[in-house]
Amino acid sequence: MNYNRVPKGCAELHHEVELAVIIGRKGVNIKENEAMDYVGGYTVSLDMTARDWQAIAKKEGNPWSIAKGFDTACPVGQFIPKEAIADPNCLELWCKVNGDLRQKGNTKDMVFKIPQIISYISQYFTLETGDLILTGTPAGVGPVKPGDTIEAGLGQLAQMKFQVQEGTNT
Amino acid sequence: MNYNRVPKGCAELHHEVELAVIIGRKGVNIKENEAMDYVGGYTVSLDMTARDWQAIAKKEGNPWSIAKGFDTACPVGQFIPKEAIADPNCLELWCKVNGDLRQKGNTKDMVFKIPQIISYISQYFTLETGDLILTGTPAGVGPVKPGDTIEAGLGQLAQMKFQVQEGTNT
Repeated sequence: MNYNRVPKGCAELHHEVELAVIIGRKGVNIKENEAMDYVGGYTVSLDMTARDWQAIAKKEGNPWSIAKGFDTACPVGQFIPKEAIADPNCLELWCKVNGDLRQKGNTKDMVFKIPQIISYISQYFTLETGDLILTGTPAGVGPVKPGDTIEAGLGQLAQMKFQVQEGTNT
Repeated sequence: MNYNRVPKGCAELHHEVELAVIIGRKGVNIKENEAMDYVGGYTVSLDMTARDWQAIAKKEGNPWSIAKGFDTACPVGQFIPKEAIADPNCLELWCKVNGDLRQKGNTKDMVFKIPQIISYISQYFTLETGDLILTGTPAGVGPVKPGDTIEAGLGQLAQMKFQVQEGTNT
């Protein structure tokens, strides 16, 4: 089985299931009404977060880099070409831990729609083919521990399953 | 001339000259006493920072990603193989704006030494060949504006020169 690690010293690792948008061609300063032309596809992702470290970073005004960027922090499912998804603004997102449903949402409830996100980000960062944009998570985030099995998906598409392991980062 | 951009909407772009360590081979969980084996070389870098955006991020407990990661935020000089530097812990760092010396320091005054930094980071992130680690800046950071010329270097090594331009990110 695939695996994900609790980074060494993290006391509270949380799952956050998210729709990931995969960029299909390079762009910068992309207009909202052209943004969907830059999408190559989608997948399901988990924005695994060291919540204890993130809380300290927030409190102290420090970067979040380690809290959300440690090795194995962003497991993703398989690539789904955009043609296979009729409406990316109406996709069910779900996440189970040890078989129990913990998160269930729908991309129709996203605060920022995909074209807004792409347009905003591309003002600051050149988007490259293969870049992944994570888009926010529905309610229900919570802790996992070594030995837990996480499953997540976009409806019946892009399912993934992996096991949480101790943070022996070797 | 090479150039660097003020990102659109940024009112206060600052220069921060830094020694950049270039990773020479892949590693993870690197011990301090083996860390120098993972160094391939060095260069001079500028950690260009949208100080106004960073101040807001600090105050609100948000990530610094845009404040330090926007396009052109990290100009670097040429690669210097480590064999060409007798002691990386005794290198002069300097930065001039329009010919005026603004920053001058020495890597001997770094709070964290190179092996400590490599060992610490590699607990969380796998270091890959070609990765760049910036190491902190001496006193004297300050604003630049479109039209300014920035020069920076490591003593007489790895000099670079570029011009600040308006943030027309195209």
